[in-house]
Amino acid sequence: MTKKTSGSEIERLVQLLARLPGLGHRSARKAALALIKKRTDLLEPLAAALAEAAAKIVECSSCGNIDTVDPCTICRDPRRDASLIVVVEEIGDLWALERAGVVKGLYHVLGGHLSPLDGIGPDRLNIGRLIERAAPPVTEILLALNATVEGQSTAHYLTEQLQGRGITVTRLAQGVPIGGELDYLDEGTLAAAVKSRRTL
Amino acid sequence: MTKKTSGSEIERLVQLLARLPGLGHRSARKAALALIKKRTDLLEPLAAALAEAAAKIVECSSCGNIDTVDPCTICRDPRRDASLIVVVEEIGDLWALERAGVVKGLYHVLGGHLSPLDGIGPDRLNIGRLIERAAPPVTEILLALNATVEGQSTAHYLTEQLQGRGITVTRLAQGVPIGGELDYLDEGTLAAAVKSRRTL
Repeated sequence: MTKKTSGSEIERLVQLLARLPGLGHRSARKAALALIKKRTDLLEPLAAALAEAAAKIVECSSCGNIDTVDPCTICRDPRRDASLIVVVEEIGDLWALERAGVVKGLYHVLGGHLSPLDGIGPDRLNIGRLIERAAPPVTEILLALNATVEGQSTAHYLTEQLQGRGITVTRLAQGVPIGGELDYLDEGTLAAAVKSRRTL
Repeated sequence: MTKKTSGSEIERLVQLLARLPGLGHRSARKAALALIKKRTDLLEPLAAALAEAAAKIVECSSCGNIDTVDPCTICRDPRRDASLIVVVEEIGDLWALERAGVVKGLYHVLGGHLSPLDGIGPDRLNIGRLIERAAPPVTEILLALNATVEGQSTAHYLTEQLQGRGITVTRLAQGVPIGGELDYLDEGTLAAAVKSRRTL
């Protein structure tokens, strides 16, 4: 009696799906079954979309975003404010800011944050290219890094590197998130919110 | 300023991934990013595995299992006990029983359960083929259906249909699951466990 009856093709599909973030082995099996059940509706389109992504998606040589063109759609958009570069850790952060529609400038994706314990120094991040870009017409660099220890020490390092170039280096405001209840916020956030209080 | 900068290829990939069970829109975005980051390691193999699944996987015309051959590997295995058919609702149930390695017989996948409210009558399930299979060498049909109202009413219907063929129709034992704490079990399970109590 075979332990896995599902055939090596299905087993391989499950193994690969299980490597996606958010899918364990159990949910990967459910996903594989759903795919096979919806062959023309889901399996074939997904196979095609993945093949197309593999063939077409490239990293933007300017900002590190991913797109099907290089430079990416954002970098080549003339309506964007080229005097502002918003630095983010990951492409997912860029997407979040774009969904919010709050950035009129360009982006720069670091590809992570400094983490000496994990052996991630400045050379492992997309920092050299950022320093190159820190020249006219750029007048402001907004460090939109995570409000974590690693994010903030990365911001600190970048601030030092970017000094003396006549460029204003800024960071995101810290405070109470919209809809946030004071009772549930950590002390650091409350301290930042009080310190940066505004006149009404 | 475009709201979606990720390019239509990436957006399409996210949309398709979000239709997998267990993946919401947010985790689909994470999965898409992970795929694009691990291009040779994950994206290309997954694209290939899906294409292969789409090309090769067929439904077993005998039992309703999926495999790359028809009849499936289980149905054509001569070491299997052909006198026993284990009826399950879904292929995932078949997989679960195979992982447990507790079934020596063959299977029959119904493709769901009776659900008059959803318009799912006997004709929508793989029942006709089961009735055909209910002939020698088959001597026992084990209804391994879910212990839900729908599963049990499906079992009831099948029991009626299979009567008068000289075949023993059985169902799974009900009781306390291994590791189960009485305190957390529902009354129905406790009642079944008491009713079917065994002598030590």
